[in-house]
Amino acid sequence: MEKNFSVKYRIWIFSGKEKVFGIGRIELLEKIKKTGSISTAAAQMKMSYRQAWQMVNEMNDRAGKPLVEKQLGGKSGGGSVVTPAGINAIRQFNLLEQEVGEFIRSKIKKMNF
Amino acid sequence: MEKNFSVKYRIWIFSGKEKVFGIGRIELLEKIKKTGSISTAAAQMKMSYRQAWQMVNEMNDRAGKPLVEKQLGGKSGGGSVVTPAGINAIRQFNLLEQEVGEFIRSKIKKMNF
Repeated sequence: MEKNFSVKYRIWIFSGKEKVFGIGRIELLEKIKKTGSISTAAAQMKMSYRQAWQMVNEMNDRAGKPLVEKQLGGKSGGGSVVTPAGINAIRQFNLLEQEVGEFIRSKIKKMNF
Repeated sequence: MEKNFSVKYRIWIFSGKEKVFGIGRIELLEKIKKTGSISTAAAQMKMSYRQAWQMVNEMNDRAGKPLVEKQLGGKSGGGSVVTPAGINAIRQFNLLEQEVGEFIRSKIKKMNF
């Protein structure tokens, strides 16, 4: 191309008509993983706890297996943990994003109009 | 994957920080090509003429060459025509969309968490 074009893209994964993942939900999972807390993750994303909790609930439902689980007991009690399936989902979504980005960038190099 | 996931995606092409194309703008170009008229295309997309005209102007500016040109004179006069560069842009954007779709679908088949 004669001009230097760049590209933005967004990917959402659905189960039927219901959204399972998008970049925001993956970011929420990442922050829960890091902080061990839905409410801290929610605050970091400037979301209400209710909103974050609802997203987590939807992801757990729609992914077909729990991605986040409440941790009962323990000294601090009441934390949340991202399950191995959740960690897998984060990794695979991020990999998909990266691969799609590379794919698109290789394609737009060849665009010429 | 154990569930049947599907994917949605959107692609936008930018020049610097300015959007050149997205699916809506490409649809606008397609309708101008078909109808020979920005105002008819705008009406079909439930946009104001002003809004459509602004999009066309931005695309012409940002693409580095005119994609839509006013046709002067002639019996009906005042129509608009999509240039060969515009037709190329439509074709290449749609091809990119299709190829990205195929790429993503092939990738999500292998997702498993």
